[in-house]
Amino acid sequence: MVSGKMKPLVENNSVIRVMFEEGKRLSSIYGPENVFDFSLGNPNVPAPDEVKESILEIIQEEDSAFIHGYMSNAGYEDVRETIAHSLNERFGTDFGVNNILMTVGAASGLNVILKTILEPGDEVIVFAPYFVEYGNYVANYDGRLVTVSPNTVDFQPNLEELKQKITEKTKAVIINTPNNPTGVVYSEDTLKKLAEILENKEKEFKREIVLLSDEPYRELAYDGVQVPYVTKYYKNTVVCYSYSKSLSLPGERIGYLVIPNELRDSQETFTAASIANRVLGCVNAPSLMQRVIKRCIEKGASVNLMAYDRNRNRLYEGLKECGFSCIRPDGAFYLFVKSPVEDEKEFCSRAAKHNLLLVPGSSFACPGYVRIAYCVSYEKIEGSMPAFRALAEEYGLQPV
Amino acid sequence: MVSGKMKPLVENNSVIRVMFEEGKRLSSIYGPENVFDFSLGNPNVPAPDEVKESILEIIQEEDSAFIHGYMSNAGYEDVRETIAHSLNERFGTDFGVNNILMTVGAASGLNVILKTILEPGDEVIVFAPYFVEYGNYVANYDGRLVTVSPNTVDFQPNLEELKQKITEKTKAVIINTPNNPTGVVYSEDTLKKLAEILENKEKEFKREIVLLSDEPYRELAYDGVQVPYVTKYYKNTVVCYSYSKSLSLPGERIGYLVIPNELRDSQETFTAASIANRVLGCVNAPSLMQRVIKRCIEKGASVNLMAYDRNRNRLYEGLKECGFSCIRPDGAFYLFVKSPVEDEKEFCSRAAKHNLLLVPGSSFACPGYVRIAYCVSYEKIEGSMPAFRALAEEYGLQPV
Repeated sequence: MVSGKMKPLVENNSVIRVMFEEGKRLSSIYGPENVFDFSLGNPNVPAPDEVKESILEIIQEEDSAFIHGYMSNAGYEDVRETIAHSLNERFGTDFGVNNILMTVGAASGLNVILKTILEPGDEVIVFAPYFVEYGNYVANYDGRLVTVSPNTVDFQPNLEELKQKITEKTKAVIINTPNNPTGVVYSEDTLKKLAEILENKEKEFKREIVLLSDEPYRELAYDGVQVPYVTKYYKNTVVCYSYSKSLSLPGERIGYLVIPNELRDSQETFTAASIANRVLGCVNAPSLMQRVIKRCIEKGASVNLMAYDRNRNRLYEGLKECGFSCIRPDGAFYLFVKSPVEDEKEFCSRAAKHNLLLVPGSSFACPGYVRIAYCVSYEKIEGSMPAFRALAEEYGLQPV
Repeated sequence: MVSGKMKPLVENNSVIRVMFEEGKRLSSIYGPENVFDFSLGNPNVPAPDEVKESILEIIQEEDSAFIHGYMSNAGYEDVRETIAHSLNERFGTDFGVNNILMTVGAASGLNVILKTILEPGDEVIVFAPYFVEYGNYVANYDGRLVTVSPNTVDFQPNLEELKQKITEKTKAVIINTPNNPTGVVYSEDTLKKLAEILENKEKEFKREIVLLSDEPYRELAYDGVQVPYVTKYYKNTVVCYSYSKSLSLPGERIGYLVIPNELRDSQETFTAASIANRVLGCVNAPSLMQRVIKRCIEKGASVNLMAYDRNRNRLYEGLKECGFSCIRPDGAFYLFVKSPVEDEKEFCSRAAKHNLLLVPGSSFACPGYVRIAYCVSYEKIEGSMPAFRALAEEYGLQPV
């Protein structure tokens, strides 16, 4: 019954999801307080109060047929206007209502733009470590994923290898900053160099290369680190944004695409993307949540970043004290830790025996590392420290 | 920039949407009260009060991280359990939590199941007149749409022609009852005959043929007409349901697939469909709305069907009095009217001069007819009668 393209996906059902189930199983045996599930990027910080306030206001003040009704496939115009205005204020951009397309989260936004631009056989370049679903999204439209190997010094993208990997078939490059799984923020210098490479290759191959900037973690940056706005560095950029993390609404599936005027064939692309949103079956982003977003922007709502920051510091310091080594992350809610042994899957299995659930780096095309999602309670992080210490001792790591 | 597959879609942007824009244009000239836009299936009957009540209860009583958080890709288990139970009570079925997969509306449900089962080149049969997006959904997965011509006597499906059109490449047949655009409900007799044909052809070609039952209008049936539950007649059935019409929530994008145990490879198909939901970028159906659905089912919520029924009767009688001919619809909120001239697009253009916006039947692969969506206010229907009379007179129709 199941198609040939789907069969392997069923067989290799996402490792992360499998761990999620494993966490539930361990919890039922040892009690949830004794299981340290760092496997899933499910935000534990609740949505800001403004979400609840906005929902209440909307259902009291706005008309039901309007709140829950169809609108333009691209989304409510006033919502898109508010988002454009907010981006312009924050980043000095110049977006209008026809540059913002509301989507069912960033994952759907990526699907929409890939459906819009990809020809079968087109190559899409990603930088390892990368979110494994990119491969599935690209395959949906018969594109071919091309991987640039990781730069394990600082996990900025390996731009020298990028140059080698761009061919006359390259249609897009996906970046994700702040990054899942490393937490690294791409610097302005990185973006400038990346833009220069893409511009030169566009000339060389006489073909547009679209930079897809997947930005669900944009608002999650610490220590005052700036996340440069990518459209300002490279004109053929499309931004895929989500409120899953910035307002802790992952289940609501609400985000948007930015299709700037500077993009080649901008308005035709916008129209095509609106149609792709429709024909892929989303039709439009969920209506009530669109209206919630508008009010939340107007109220200046944001998640409690301090909670993530506290987790980050505690976990980073704690792991270092145990003797583990990792890059201090500037953003997102992940730590990418070097496995003390080459086969990080073995490391994950040993960790699971201490009720620590970590995701192997090979799930992100970066073996030898593991991802720890610290979007959990502070108590969970505190509580996990003895288990991490015991695990470190098993490997004979020296506390720093 | 735009891919070859998307280009024609941009060029032939949905006729219905174009009319929607035309309606806005005419309204700005003549005033909205003087424009009779029957082009869009956007429910005018508001969501039942239980929707608002449920939203209020949920955001007061349930935890924010739960309401807006990730859950299994298939949806919250308690929501799926409630839906299964409700179907079982109403239709004598035997569904459980692993037969219900929450989706971003029926359109996304169709995409999910087509992605799950279609091989490139597989044929999917539809009965004209049919919702034009089916062609796009099937093309998304490189399937080939095969059309059975309309039975204009009573608009039940043309089963004799179906027999001829099934080949060794046929993977699925889509039905839509109550039907958009005709309003016709497929009878139990029709479904039994259809099932028999499919079972025989499955044996002949030694291959499963999946019956996809697209049911956004299931709850909209009048005069006590029963809409038979399709899984009871044919085992390889998948139901694609939506709350867009039954609870007037079209913008919220909330529905579900029913993948019954009787379907060949049922649980593998369910798993694959959950993954398809994820990799197509929906990830899961919007979370708050899932929770709303659970409470609305428990409260026995439904839209005010009487309002549609009143519209239906007034419009049907009014058009007949003018001399137009159409089948009296048993369900949905559409009338499918015979054009007084062969070229129904010319008829639509003339109607537009009377500020009547109708959709040509050729948009549903059934030229010679027009669709009137009566999901508008009663006043709008009353107000449109003089325009319909004037239009009928232009064509020399005889009042009945």
